[in-house]
Amino acid sequence: MSLRIDDLQINNLKLIQDKSLFCFGTDAVLLANFAKPLINAEILDIGTGNGIIPVLLSAKVKAKHITGIEIQQESFLLAQKNIELNSLGGLVSVVLGDVRQKECLNKQFNYITCNPPYKMAGTGIENPKSPLAIARHELTLTLDDVFSRAEKLLVSKGKIAMVHKPERLAEIFYTMNKYKIEPKRLQLVYSTAKAAEPSLVLVEGAKDGGKGIRYEKNLYVYDENGNYTANINDLYNKTLKEDENERA
Amino acid sequence: MSLRIDDLQINNLKLIQDKSLFCFGTDAVLLANFAKPLINAEILDIGTGNGIIPVLLSAKVKAKHITGIEIQQESFLLAQKNIELNSLGGLVSVVLGDVRQKECLNKQFNYITCNPPYKMAGTGIENPKSPLAIARHELTLTLDDVFSRAEKLLVSKGKIAMVHKPERLAEIFYTMNKYKIEPKRLQLVYSTAKAAEPSLVLVEGAKDGGKGIRYEKNLYVYDENGNYTANINDLYNKTLKEDENERA
Repeated sequence: MSLRIDDLQINNLKLIQDKSLFCFGTDAVLLANFAKPLINAEILDIGTGNGIIPVLLSAKVKAKHITGIEIQQESFLLAQKNIELNSLGGLVSVVLGDVRQKECLNKQFNYITCNPPYKMAGTGIENPKSPLAIARHELTLTLDDVFSRAEKLLVSKGKIAMVHKPERLAEIFYTMNKYKIEPKRLQLVYSTAKAAEPSLVLVEGAKDGGKGIRYEKNLYVYDENGNYTANINDLYNKTLKEDENERA
Repeated sequence: MSLRIDDLQINNLKLIQDKSLFCFGTDAVLLANFAKPLINAEILDIGTGNGIIPVLLSAKVKAKHITGIEIQQESFLLAQKNIELNSLGGLVSVVLGDVRQKECLNKQFNYITCNPPYKMAGTGIENPKSPLAIARHELTLTLDDVFSRAEKLLVSKGKIAMVHKPERLAEIFYTMNKYKIEPKRLQLVYSTAKAAEPSLVLVEGAKDGGKGIRYEKNLYVYDENGNYTANINDLYNKTLKEDENERA
């Protein structure tokens, strides 16, 4: 284990991460920013990892409750530590389990977030049981898994927000549609204003939603000098600073 | 009838339009630019109107043949005039017919273009038999019609390019998928670089294509002074000039 604590710079929130597991990146911050649960929502974060998204959402929305579900025990334990560290025990809880199994979650949700593995299962995986492989490749969670479960877990008109790689946008849309989730909101994220292609997409869909998709203004992560743009700094509440408390 | 002749500024091509019918706009020029048929392709333009897209494509690609199909007799006759006016009789032909009817077209194609009606059938249509209503609303051609016929009319790996309204992007993707056409290429068109949302999308799909979509660089139509951007001027080969030959 190689732990570090980051100061999230929002409401004094902190986050313990294990460098040998998957550490959160810009994606999680962008997704928490993009998600728009209504007040008093029951929120679920699928594949919550160390709990970064529930922790960020706790500062952003007055939720009824935020549940994270995580399949890997080490990450689940970290998420529990992070709930404790931030005194979020009443608002946030984590479930150790496989979201594909019906018995894991016994309620419905108004809003789901998911920062899923980006890569299709296949070549390039050295050890399919490693925590990093599970976080990066669709070994235990495919797009079909996410949306088929979301259909069951969302109330009617409930929403799901996802961050993903732009090349998978079409698949995301037609897998949503397969499970009666209509894409309603899209944001493209570019590394800079001059980038030829976007580097991430953020998508929100509504179960039983009407047709028609809206676009959020494109996000550019870096300016021409390689610094975060004002937009990104705003949503990071200044850049995340690594705490001195890093330890082996 | 209220005819006008436009000089297309490419290969001395000209186009007769009838102001009482649907006149082509930026969309058609953008679509002809976005389409990338290979040399010697059999090309089909669905809902060809006055023939603008076949005429523009004739200047851009060495096609084997370009067929336009049009359901409205007045537009069909104009398209025929435009083929004659540009001496394209050997390369381009137009069919008067309903692409939804199997017997209209008796060959397969390598590439299809389509600038379809943008609006769903429903409210706001004053006269559902009027030529403008048919060009603008999905009265005789829905997305499902286009892609179900494209599946039959394309050879395997053949491609279809479409211009449409951004709010319909998700529907386009999942209707393509329903008919085994995989979205492969996407371009967003914005009125200006500061526009909050895109005003058009250009999409290309491949029948039996593999997964994964690529993005063309965003297109901005106007600069901050309200003039066409260099990109648009390039692809227009200078702005279309209305000819003096306008007549009543």
